Amino acid sequence: MRQFVLVGHDAPTDPEFSLNDLPGAGRVDVLCRCVTAAFLLSHGIRESTRVWLVLGDSLSIRFEGRDLRRLNPDERSTAALIRGALEEREEAIGHMDAESSPGVFVSRRGLEGVLDEVIGESASSDSNAVITLREEGAPITDLDPPADPVFVLSDDRDFTTRESDLLAERTDERVRLGPQALHANHAIAVAHNYLDTAGFERY
Amino acid sequence: MRQFVLVGHDAPTDPEFSLNDLPGAGRVDVLCRCVTAAFLLSHGIRESTRVWLVLGDSLSIRFEGRDLRRLNPDERSTAALIRGALEEREEAIGHMDAESSPGVFVSRRGLEGVLDEVIGESASSDSNAVITLREEGAPITDLDPPADPVFVLSDDRDFTTRESDLLAERTDERVRLGPQALHANHAIAVAHNYLDTAGFERY
Repeated sequence: MRQFVLVGHDAPTDPEFSLNDLPGAGRVDVLCRCVTAAFLLSHGIRESTRVWLVLGDSLSIRFEGRDLRRLNPDERSTAALIRGALEEREEAIGHMDAESSPGVFVSRRGLEGVLDEVIGESASSDSNAVITLREEGAPITDLDPPADPVFVLSDDRDFTTRESDLLAERTDERVRLGPQALHANHAIAVAHNYLDTAGFERY
Repeated sequence: MRQFVLVGHDAPTDPEFSLNDLPGAGRVDVLCRCVTAAFLLSHGIRESTRVWLVLGDSLSIRFEGRDLRRLNPDERSTAALIRGALEEREEAIGHMDAESSPGVFVSRRGLEGVLDEVIGESASSDSNAVITLREEGAPITDLDPPADPVFVLSDDRDFTTRESDLLAERTDERVRLGPQALHANHAIAVAHNYLDTAGFERY
């Protein structure tokens, strides 16, 4: 299983946003592109992938590749899935998630809660590694590709000091994907390809 | 210079489409994601990149990284640039392009004309290579990374027989980026990273 945790710093926490202005809706466009980069292949879906979108301090949306339906490549239809999840946010209580659409769950977890969940699973698996993608990290090519990685990324803003502290405590590696700092969705596409081609020789 | 030629099979050739339904407008959403994948970095633009969108039999839009302004990461604003170029299509005559916005040019070239243009340049350069990205190609890792590659990709549909014949005649290599067939925009992000990290060792 590959997991991606995306921290959306300005992301909306209620569904009152317009599908006609996604950048103006707390950069929902960024979230949408990350979800599609994580799941979509040319002829199908990456079933063994999970995405967490962290929205504000205490809300997140989880997408499960195995169960996802109705995910299209365009931003607007993905934004409609996010809006649908936010419409169900009152149904999520404590650690009980609410499913708003097949494979889409809204939860009361913020970044800390999501990391706890991910690390809780990780403790029972030798193949898991929680990896923060950051510009100043070590080259990913130095990393032995983990079987079940959890990549933590930020949207178009930097991690806050509090988030950085949380990540420093709880993640295993800080890596970068190359010499250029990429948008989060492109980083996800590259990280997938890095794992897809693990074992390939290259120049 | 890195160039990407994207063939849009259903793409509109006139500006009469709605920004509220890009998938319904001949998959303009696909074109938009490819343009942003080709140019955008987290903190800037890839200036030494050129994109050709081939729309139908005899129209294309060329984006020049060096001159581009007003390119944002979201699909809708990129679609507005495409629509703006199509509004100027009557101004393009013969091989004279029309500039609709800084760095965005509409031209009367179809795929053959674009390949002729690209190969004409290539003939004067040793470092150019015209590379078709196809599922059945050889692994890109077998390729010595060219300094000035031209990648030719299709949108969400396969190349037609006529296009395949043209490409077989005029391109140097058929490569794939990994074992998974990717959407065109993700392929562009991966191809850039492959070139960005050329020389990096990896597992």
